[in-house]
Amino acid sequence: MTAEDEIRQVLEKRVEAILLHDAASANAHLDVAIVAFEAAGPLQVPSDQVRDERSTQLWLDSFDDGPFVTMEELAVHAEQSVAFCHSLNRLRGHTMDGKTVDVTMRSTVGFRKIEATWTNVHADTSFPR
Amino acid sequence: MTAEDEIRQVLEKRVEAILLHDAASANAHLDVAIVAFEAAGPLQVPSDQVRDERSTQLWLDSFDDGPFVTMEELAVHAEQSVAFCHSLNRLRGHTMDGKTVDVTMRSTVGFRKIEATWTNVHADTSFPR
Repeated sequence: MTAEDEIRQVLEKRVEAILLHDAASANAHLDVAIVAFEAAGPLQVPSDQVRDERSTQLWLDSFDDGPFVTMEELAVHAEQSVAFCHSLNRLRGHTMDGKTVDVTMRSTVGFRKIEATWTNVHADTSFPR
Repeated sequence: MTAEDEIRQVLEKRVEAILLHDAASANAHLDVAIVAFEAAGPLQVPSDQVRDERSTQLWLDSFDDGPFVTMEELAVHAEQSVAFCHSLNRLRGHTMDGKTVDVTMRSTVGFRKIEATWTNVHADTSFPR
């Protein structure tokens, strides 16, 4: 399997974990020191907050249908131990409080292979202003 | 020079070119097919538009002081031919029409080394919502 295939597999498993409301698997590849630029909030979100499984679980469980994530126009650039990818992530679903969600965000994700595991060291998610 | 040093040099030269209002040098490393997520506008900006030297020159020349860019909290991840970096880019200056600019954006940049030259294949710039 090429490095690119490995990254694609990590991404597919994450999308699957999100749909299954499996917070532990969804967060499995997040580095302890991940630098996260989220769509909303402060310029950077502290790594502990990004990796907080309980918050992820609460967010996933706020959906009674989905969230379905599709990574459109995905491009992966990967070598032995450094990789990044970018895509337009469409997130769809329906929330417990009756809202239909259908948004498309820009996503760039950076990885390092650490002890044979691709680890998500950077995430940049945004809407244009 | 390590790959990381080479990337840092590319970034420093770009910051310098911006301050010198040298649009050609500022855009020198942009790939013909760069995928650009800009802070404002559509989800993606067409590569021709990103690389348009005349637009870059007009933007640079709209400043009578600056633009001074400082890449804060810069992290570079680089291997033989794949690299990415992220930073908080503070942009300061004063425009011809009398505005003082002082904004901080999140920036993630992706590179491939193509024919011995680090080429900027992806740029993701944003403000949080």
